[in-house]
Amino acid sequence: MSALSIKRLLIFSLGLLIWFAPTPIGLTPQAWHLFAIFITTIGFVIVDALPIFVASIIALSIAVFTQTLTPKEAFSGFSESFILLIVVAFLLAKGVINSGLGKRVAFMIIKRFGSSTLGLAYSTMLTDILIAPAFPSNTARSGILFPILNALCIDSNSKVEDGTHKKIGSFLMFSSMAGLTLSSSLWLTAMAANPTGVAIAKKMGVNIDYGMWVLGAIFPVLVLFILIPLVLYIIFPPQIKKTPNAPIIAKRELEKMGKFSKNEWIMSIIFISILFLWIMSEAWGLDKTIVALFGLAMLMVSNIFTLNNLKEEGGALEILVWFAILYTLSVYLGKFGFMAWLGEIIAGGVGGQSWQMVYLILVVAYVLIHYFFVSQTAHMLALFSIFLEVGIRFGVDGELMALMLLYATNFNAILTPQGSSANVIYIGSGYITPNEVYKFGGIITLLNTFIFLTIGTVWILWVI
Amino acid sequence: MSALSIKRLLIFSLGLLIWFAPTPIGLTPQAWHLFAIFITTIGFVIVDALPIFVASIIALSIAVFTQTLTPKEAFSGFSESFILLIVVAFLLAKGVINSGLGKRVAFMIIKRFGSSTLGLAYSTMLTDILIAPAFPSNTARSGILFPILNALCIDSNSKVEDGTHKKIGSFLMFSSMAGLTLSSSLWLTAMAANPTGVAIAKKMGVNIDYGMWVLGAIFPVLVLFILIPLVLYIIFPPQIKKTPNAPIIAKRELEKMGKFSKNEWIMSIIFISILFLWIMSEAWGLDKTIVALFGLAMLMVSNIFTLNNLKEEGGALEILVWFAILYTLSVYLGKFGFMAWLGEIIAGGVGGQSWQMVYLILVVAYVLIHYFFVSQTAHMLALFSIFLEVGIRFGVDGELMALMLLYATNFNAILTPQGSSANVIYIGSGYITPNEVYKFGGIITLLNTFIFLTIGTVWILWVI
Repeated sequence: MSALSIKRLLIFSLGLLIWFAPTPIGLTPQAWHLFAIFITTIGFVIVDALPIFVASIIALSIAVFTQTLTPKEAFSGFSESFILLIVVAFLLAKGVINSGLGKRVAFMIIKRFGSSTLGLAYSTMLTDILIAPAFPSNTARSGILFPILNALCIDSNSKVEDGTHKKIGSFLMFSSMAGLTLSSSLWLTAMAANPTGVAIAKKMGVNIDYGMWVLGAIFPVLVLFILIPLVLYIIFPPQIKKTPNAPIIAKRELEKMGKFSKNEWIMSIIFISILFLWIMSEAWGLDKTIVALFGLAMLMVSNIFTLNNLKEEGGALEILVWFAILYTLSVYLGKFGFMAWLGEIIAGGVGGQSWQMVYLILVVAYVLIHYFFVSQTAHMLALFSIFLEVGIRFGVDGELMALMLLYATNFNAILTPQGSSANVIYIGSGYITPNEVYKFGGIITLLNTFIFLTIGTVWILWVI
Repeated sequence: MSALSIKRLLIFSLGLLIWFAPTPIGLTPQAWHLFAIFITTIGFVIVDALPIFVASIIALSIAVFTQTLTPKEAFSGFSESFILLIVVAFLLAKGVINSGLGKRVAFMIIKRFGSSTLGLAYSTMLTDILIAPAFPSNTARSGILFPILNALCIDSNSKVEDGTHKKIGSFLMFSSMAGLTLSSSLWLTAMAANPTGVAIAKKMGVNIDYGMWVLGAIFPVLVLFILIPLVLYIIFPPQIKKTPNAPIIAKRELEKMGKFSKNEWIMSIIFISILFLWIMSEAWGLDKTIVALFGLAMLMVSNIFTLNNLKEEGGALEILVWFAILYTLSVYLGKFGFMAWLGEIIAGGVGGQSWQMVYLILVVAYVLIHYFFVSQTAHMLALFSIFLEVGIRFGVDGELMALMLLYATNFNAILTPQGSSANVIYIGSGYITPNEVYKFGGIITLLNTFIFLTIGTVWILWVI
């Protein structure tokens, strides 16, 4: 039997064990069975026994065959607006490349920062952090960053198709994906769940304003901004580190490209319009996915993205299917009471400890529970109020507890491939595998948690 | 200005005219606006001014921008089980080809019937008619027929990729798609809407049993079975008509292929299992889409259909998007009261006529209204009882009226690309364009209606 078959059999047996284990008190058998399916699916992906797509469709089939979910429930994720947003953003990115605009912007970045791979990583992360306060969705932000980054990788001759993606592409993509956890933590307005969390805290008597949020985050974010690319540089290194000639080549290529082409103009206008409408979407009550879809239509009407291009983008379907399925499983784990049950168990376990221990356990548990969640907002909505209440009950300062949990909602986003919708687009590109996210995303989450819990806590207690 | 731009501008202006025309009495502005969007979308496709995919995403964007639909309503079609079934069936078809099984079955058919294109068309249509009584879903049946037909086209060197699809492929695909209207009309159990319709009729005092259904349909279906390939042979001819060498080549190729390979065995087992479970799905309460999804997972686990194959199947995403969108628009036309309003207008207009005229008008109107419907079942559910009641009220025999309307539910299915979910998979292959369905599907629907209304009516009145 091959090593792969053994791995598959092992995970499957573990899944069966969990399924047939006695249902814990306080849970319905249905919730427990769904948990068994979910954890087994994740197990398959972590040990690389099945691709995330295959593991997901098997999981959904089993969930329906065993009547853990009805077919209607099973397919509900496919019509989620934010999941479709990822799919459309993925297609828009191809338009940026097709039009030549991606090439131009990529060469402009290389010309300026391209002499080292590390320099490129820092510059893309910094861009993200700077645009984030005006951009209340890390998914949408990934939709803006990804196409440029993708062009950057392609024009640095690091492509998935020919197996050269590890040259610089995988490293850059991972840095940018990790960078999103920082940009979302730093600004109250950088992620949809942030203001919602603040509103929930307010109802519980804990007031957090914009200044306090940024002030609390700025120092740990700064430290992590410096550390993350360095750590990735060691654990997930690019094959090519120095590219002294790249800026010279980029300069030459830019000269060769000459003036903006018609397609670049059209693409720029569409891209900037989408960007603008995404930023205004909350204020104007626009649906981000519809904005993106209309942008895609305009790209197709102007032949920048064609039907033939679309026919090659099976990867977008792949994203849609596995992400919708994992999202659905997680949503029903919540609906069946599993999340609340888990939260209560952890909350119940911290009684009698010092406030520091309570704080530590709650934050670490909150981060690790993200293994069960697909999308950050769902996690925050399910558990933030329970954890905050328990923290306050056992003596933790309300503002500290609330801030740290809300930061954690962002800095744990890279724990799993499905942990944030922003991750999905990077993984869809093929530069990063789901398995690598479990490994290196886990390490970065550990780093984030460590820095926020140590330096961050001291800093917050000092400034607020 | 190019001819294309003029066409686009024209249809768009027409759409605006309808939008801003006074809302008819009995309709809400919302229903009227959705109708304007829907009819404009179809207009774009009919005159070939926009691909069906682009027209659909523009339609959905405008529906949401104008607040005719909420985003939640707009995306609801994406989680419809029967739409996802088409997508998965489309992918399964690739597995049949990849495994080599499609090639073998195709050569077996060519060896037997392959000396003329017409012979191939008749043999595939006959296969459909023979398996239909045990197969209560024409969508699922298309999922079985399509992969074999697809392999048949490819192995007859008629492919979409190299522009040779018109050689024999387009004609064969169209014949098979048209054949589905007959197989579904002939058997009470060949389509989900049929027994539902019979149940509705029964509640209204009209009893139709299995024998009566088949007896009523058998003669017009037989006539149309002979006529349809001949008519298509004239209006939508294959470029290659006689292939005297094909059976000889097929025989040689079959000998070359030798025994069943391992992949062919696996594919056969999976294919037959899916077939069996689809047939049993009603009885055993299985969801057809989940069955197909699990089959796909098994194909992927056994590497017959790989992730790299999937990445090339953007066509499946294309199908999902336009079909889900048109379905959603049609569903909300129904929910907003447009369908019932239209039905009432027609019903109200037939008073004072002879029963023959009432019958004629009702059937023709029922067929033509299918332009507004996506999926046959929705059409039947929305209008069958209204039309039947009006027919009986004005003197038409209840059994005749009920039978003819229920047959029409099937024989009008080829009127538009979205008229039946079974059409979608054929169009997704690229052998047939949506525009061709509007043209030649319209003609076939006319032929179906004519034969059923003349020969069929006389026949039914004689036998029942």
